[in-house]
Amino acid sequence: MFDWLDTHAEDRRRAGLSRQLRPRRPDSDLLDLAGNDYLGLAKDKRVSGAAAAATLRWGAGSTGSRLVTGSTELHSELEYELARFCGTQSALVFSSGFAANLGAVTALSGKNCSIVTDAYIHASLIDGCRLSRAEVAVTAHADPAAAGRALATRRTERAVFVTDTVFSVDGDLAPLGELAAVCRANGAALIADDAHGFGVLGDGGRGAVHAAGLAGAPDVVTTLTLSKSLGSQGGAVLGPRRVIRHLVENARSFIFDTGLAPGSAAAALTALTVLKEEPERAGRVLEIARTLAERLRAAGLAASEPDAAVVSVRAPSPDAALAWSQDCRAAGVWVGCFRPPSVPDSVSRLRLTARADLTEGEIDRAVEVITRCAPR
Amino acid sequence: MFDWLDTHAEDRRRAGLSRQLRPRRPDSDLLDLAGNDYLGLAKDKRVSGAAAAATLRWGAGSTGSRLVTGSTELHSELEYELARFCGTQSALVFSSGFAANLGAVTALSGKNCSIVTDAYIHASLIDGCRLSRAEVAVTAHADPAAAGRALATRRTERAVFVTDTVFSVDGDLAPLGELAAVCRANGAALIADDAHGFGVLGDGGRGAVHAAGLAGAPDVVTTLTLSKSLGSQGGAVLGPRRVIRHLVENARSFIFDTGLAPGSAAAALTALTVLKEEPERAGRVLEIARTLAERLRAAGLAASEPDAAVVSVRAPSPDAALAWSQDCRAAGVWVGCFRPPSVPDSVSRLRLTARADLTEGEIDRAVEVITRCAPR
Repeated sequence: MFDWLDTHAEDRRRAGLSRQLRPRRPDSDLLDLAGNDYLGLAKDKRVSGAAAAATLRWGAGSTGSRLVTGSTELHSELEYELARFCGTQSALVFSSGFAANLGAVTALSGKNCSIVTDAYIHASLIDGCRLSRAEVAVTAHADPAAAGRALATRRTERAVFVTDTVFSVDGDLAPLGELAAVCRANGAALIADDAHGFGVLGDGGRGAVHAAGLAGAPDVVTTLTLSKSLGSQGGAVLGPRRVIRHLVENARSFIFDTGLAPGSAAAALTALTVLKEEPERAGRVLEIARTLAERLRAAGLAASEPDAAVVSVRAPSPDAALAWSQDCRAAGVWVGCFRPPSVPDSVSRLRLTARADLTEGEIDRAVEVITRCAPR
Repeated sequence: MFDWLDTHAEDRRRAGLSRQLRPRRPDSDLLDLAGNDYLGLAKDKRVSGAAAAATLRWGAGSTGSRLVTGSTELHSELEYELARFCGTQSALVFSSGFAANLGAVTALSGKNCSIVTDAYIHASLIDGCRLSRAEVAVTAHADPAAAGRALATRRTERAVFVTDTVFSVDGDLAPLGELAAVCRANGAALIADDAHGFGVLGDGGRGAVHAAGLAGAPDVVTTLTLSKSLGSQGGAVLGPRRVIRHLVENARSFIFDTGLAPGSAAAALTALTVLKEEPERAGRVLEIARTLAERLRAAGLAASEPDAAVVSVRAPSPDAALAWSQDCRAAGVWVGCFRPPSVPDSVSRLRLTARADLTEGEIDRAVEVITRCAPR
């Protein structure tokens, strides 16, 4: 029955695309340049302490769909604070960023709608498009003119444009202002996934949508994760009140999913408070990412020019990328290794992430190891 | 741009289908017959204590995809214990049951595969089918002969049959043994969502797939949630080793999602230990569900005959179901109110869930209130 799986696995192995889980230990002394804990808050004692206390008070799980027993006061407080912080009317928390993206894209499009997307959007947005039953047109990466042409020639009255704000693989920023203008000129709404912008970009980490002056716009919807800058788990959709109300009633990945665990809601809420109290964390991430990238380029490596926390370094092949990342790990530095299908352009690379709490010494060590282990 | 949302909301309101979030308080004294915490473990101090301790030790979030930094030793221990308990070779933990279902259905089907489903499967399985690019045929509810006909007349070599084991709305059991036989006779694999069977049915709560003698079968894949009987958050796929390896490398809802929070993994792991130590909890749920249903039928209500924890009670209309559930709540008893699109047959109903720790007195009170509040 499942013999084809073995053939498939063998094909992947031959192409240098095998993947394996490597569970980490609690006492790992690897220097982490692979995770998305951009502000260094996942292990902050205020954040984990709040999560632990909420778990003891509310229980380990939310016990049901948000529409049945799965909504606690923690969820609504988190939604209120997220919306207030980012400058939107309303917010809705999902159990993951993946679920938030599925919910936003599907519930705000549908059969009588066209979706136009940037070619490099995240897998969860792509899956939202595939689920939507809308007509989908994919346009060139970061190309507002192409977006405008696709929107102008659509066959439906309604349309949405879907993009990441900061692209997850290369860390480059979408031209959000231009895209919003093109959307408005063509009567389309904008859905922007700020997973990698929130907590890093904008005033005090309010994100790329806020930085572009679009946060309170009536035709803009933002999605984000609670699992990156906020060090927790979950996702959220932010936007006009009527959009959020519509998602409550229509987003299948919200209605038919168990609510986020109370501990994770409390962790995100406390991390948000920490970010408000220590807004310098946001700018620090970007600064570190730029330092890291500059020093890697100075050492002759093909590092990207980061617009947020992510730095990507191109590798000659999937096998070379894997060997490079493994050598770095053996030397104590943990970097991401991204190969197809996790890269939009088929180019394998190391993916490094800056963290607000990386020290000068750690940056030195990272640059030294990554350079030393680079393929000849 | 979003004016259509208001029209849509007004249509739902007129049809009696509006939904609202009602966040609960930590000190609510409502009698909970609405949640899915079947074994009463979400607030068990051993479970919430283990979650709190793990959060303090590992951090509030897993910090990345399971393939990058998001796998901890807790995740692999949980996977090992789930597989061992249920009698499968291997298991893989996802951030939700929704994500587990999307991952299993899409990664195990694809363009060159036919999917045949029961008509009443869960929304997450339906979305998996829609995402799969497979040819999908929907057959009558709980009808192995219809399943056999659809599988026999398919146009692809590969095929899978997809079903819930216990259907989430009415709580009835799928004819798993017959379905598995029909699948084998037609060279198809079986994907069974045991979200509502696991922890309740089978030897010590090993689930409906185990009870049907199918757990270790080479052509059967089980999905389940960690957010119902285990009182936590998350989902899992269980099956042959090569299936799990394939999901690690190919399931988009696994690869492109942040790993489950360490606290939630620890909660599920500890709840599983409690279930092993106190296997009588499983049988007790079923017993209570049957008592509840019998007594409601004896009072003249259209209650289902439960095969697991869920008891459904038919209501004459969406409005009547909503008013009924609201009256129960005002009288201190919290019941689920399921209306379209959350019901497969367009019939609105109350959905009650049994819990292993419900007392005789609570059952008396529930029956009294639900009967008293019933529509005339």
